[in-house]
Amino acid sequence: MKRVYNFSAGPAILPEEVLKEAAQEMLDYQDSGMSVMEMSHRSKVYQHIVDEAEKDLRTLMNIPDNYKVLFLQGGATLQFSMIPINLMKNGVADYIITGHWAKKAAEEAAKYVKVNVVASSQDKVFSYIPNVKDMTFSEEADYVFMCDNNTIYGTKFHEIPDVKGKVLINDASSCILSEPIDVSKFGMIFAGAQKNVGPAGTVIVIIREDLIRQDIDPKTPIMLRYDIHAENGSMYNTPPTYGIYLCGKVFKWLLKLGGLPAIHHMNIEKANILYDYLDTSKMFKGTVSKDSRSLMNVCFKSISAELDDKFIKEAKQAGFDNLKGHRTTGGMRASIYNAMPKEGVIALVAFMHEFEKNNEGA
Amino acid sequence: MKRVYNFSAGPAILPEEVLKEAAQEMLDYQDSGMSVMEMSHRSKVYQHIVDEAEKDLRTLMNIPDNYKVLFLQGGATLQFSMIPINLMKNGVADYIITGHWAKKAAEEAAKYVKVNVVASSQDKVFSYIPNVKDMTFSEEADYVFMCDNNTIYGTKFHEIPDVKGKVLINDASSCILSEPIDVSKFGMIFAGAQKNVGPAGTVIVIIREDLIRQDIDPKTPIMLRYDIHAENGSMYNTPPTYGIYLCGKVFKWLLKLGGLPAIHHMNIEKANILYDYLDTSKMFKGTVSKDSRSLMNVCFKSISAELDDKFIKEAKQAGFDNLKGHRTTGGMRASIYNAMPKEGVIALVAFMHEFEKNNEGA
Repeated sequence: MKRVYNFSAGPAILPEEVLKEAAQEMLDYQDSGMSVMEMSHRSKVYQHIVDEAEKDLRTLMNIPDNYKVLFLQGGATLQFSMIPINLMKNGVADYIITGHWAKKAAEEAAKYVKVNVVASSQDKVFSYIPNVKDMTFSEEADYVFMCDNNTIYGTKFHEIPDVKGKVLINDASSCILSEPIDVSKFGMIFAGAQKNVGPAGTVIVIIREDLIRQDIDPKTPIMLRYDIHAENGSMYNTPPTYGIYLCGKVFKWLLKLGGLPAIHHMNIEKANILYDYLDTSKMFKGTVSKDSRSLMNVCFKSISAELDDKFIKEAKQAGFDNLKGHRTTGGMRASIYNAMPKEGVIALVAFMHEFEKNNEGA
Repeated sequence: MKRVYNFSAGPAILPEEVLKEAAQEMLDYQDSGMSVMEMSHRSKVYQHIVDEAEKDLRTLMNIPDNYKVLFLQGGATLQFSMIPINLMKNGVADYIITGHWAKKAAEEAAKYVKVNVVASSQDKVFSYIPNVKDMTFSEEADYVFMCDNNTIYGTKFHEIPDVKGKVLINDASSCILSEPIDVSKFGMIFAGAQKNVGPAGTVIVIIREDLIRQDIDPKTPIMLRYDIHAENGSMYNTPPTYGIYLCGKVFKWLLKLGGLPAIHHMNIEKANILYDYLDTSKMFKGTVSKDSRSLMNVCFKSISAELDDKFIKEAKQAGFDNLKGHRTTGGMRASIYNAMPKEGVIALVAFMHEFEKNNEGA
């Protein structure tokens, strides 16, 4: 068995310890005589798995009691529809556009509500987070939408916008559980699991109870109603049982490491190793504003597209996989989620250093 | 490691061989240096997994070229909404109500279309399949909906209704891949994976291309549009990658066994062992009409609810798990999907025989 350093933006690296446990339990989960995949979601043993997962997530994120935790399907993309459908009252919503996904969310919302773009960084290819102090929100806005960490561009909000009592919705798909967050500042936080938590196909929704309404359009597809999922403990129909089980394992792994303050410390350390190198390198440069840098997705370029390609190819051969940047940005992207060990980043920087030396004058 | 005989109705037993392979590949899939869970869905290695899965499913079911195969999320329940939303033209649909799930499907459809119930077996607690010869369909019906195998009640259509050119939609969640089926007789066949194919969280949709339309309500949530999923090869957003990988393994397992004719033969053999015993037992009786019996879900009762409880308890202790019937029917249900080995059914019947002897005069 070999393991590469996997810098994929998502689906992405998972803790090796978690994968080993899952492999060991594949045919017989804790003497149940079956795989978690083979269990009825209505069984006691599976209910315990979900309950533990929720409890551990609540502990990790210090989720207040007046928030529901839901494990749903359809990825963040389905949330882009569910949010306006479930939350609209006045039919107006404010969107902060900091990248591809926030834009997609706004486009989808426009089917249902009047969308106001309150800030955008599209003028500079989403290479920065707009100043949150400059933002003013619509009086009638049912909610304000933000995408905390922008996977494609490698930016992250370093300050939560003060929405002055408005309901703030946060797509935290690529930074959930990477650092402590004050849940009480948000109406809802959601995240596709496949970046920092577990396998693709599970989406985590943390939503303030008073936002879960029954008086929404009666034509809403039943699977798109937060009230239905909340009333049924995410079990209105069969949930993605195996995915939730793996998320639960990752929660326990994080708790053992010391929770979000501990992983945050480690994430800062890892990111600094890479950013510090980028700030001194003559060949490689970070592509985003320093005050907007993500701890999870580090985007950078060399001095030419040709050299980028050479680097990506040679890196892959050396065991550093998935460093190619998103097709819309080019260059490189190293996604260094929670599960990426510090040694992976140190090794990458050593490789970059060597590459830079070998290609001087390129 | 112990393995019980798992008669769960779903999520359900999977082939041991498939689980073993998955465990072995958990940390390093075919020298990629990563788990399938950790792979970008846009990577070559993952694309190959999806392509193979689709190819093998096409081979197994002999799916004509003018049908698309989609791997989606949200379970059969989300299909209950997607079907009327995507297929309605006249706004009328015919439903054949043979159980809980068909009823749910009709209730959901009624949000969008005028639902005609063309036949129902609710009068006798869904213990039979209505005579398909007696059915007449609405002239304006956009489609006719049926649920092939009724998991809760243990019934199955033994003949496909002649819908006289109407579009026939088949929820085959609990019988897909259990026997050969003439796909060309249907506009669409769909199935949640978690009964006969793979883990919960993946739904298979086989749909005739001409039914996939773009001129549907523009307010349709993007994840609920068949055209979007079809255009993007099920990759409009991140699909349930690990689930599809496991489905693909089950397809290969079936092909190796000899495909659907071979598994059908084995399923008949298994079901007959159990039904033959039920037909001779003085204590246990099958609960559905003989001409409507399912090969997948065998429902039966003893002479009293107390004895049922005793049987279920003792069976569990003896390693036969999940034999309790659905809460709406009571009694017992042995789900004997493709992955249940013949030995499991033989052992169950031996146990029932023994139980009957030990409880004579109960």
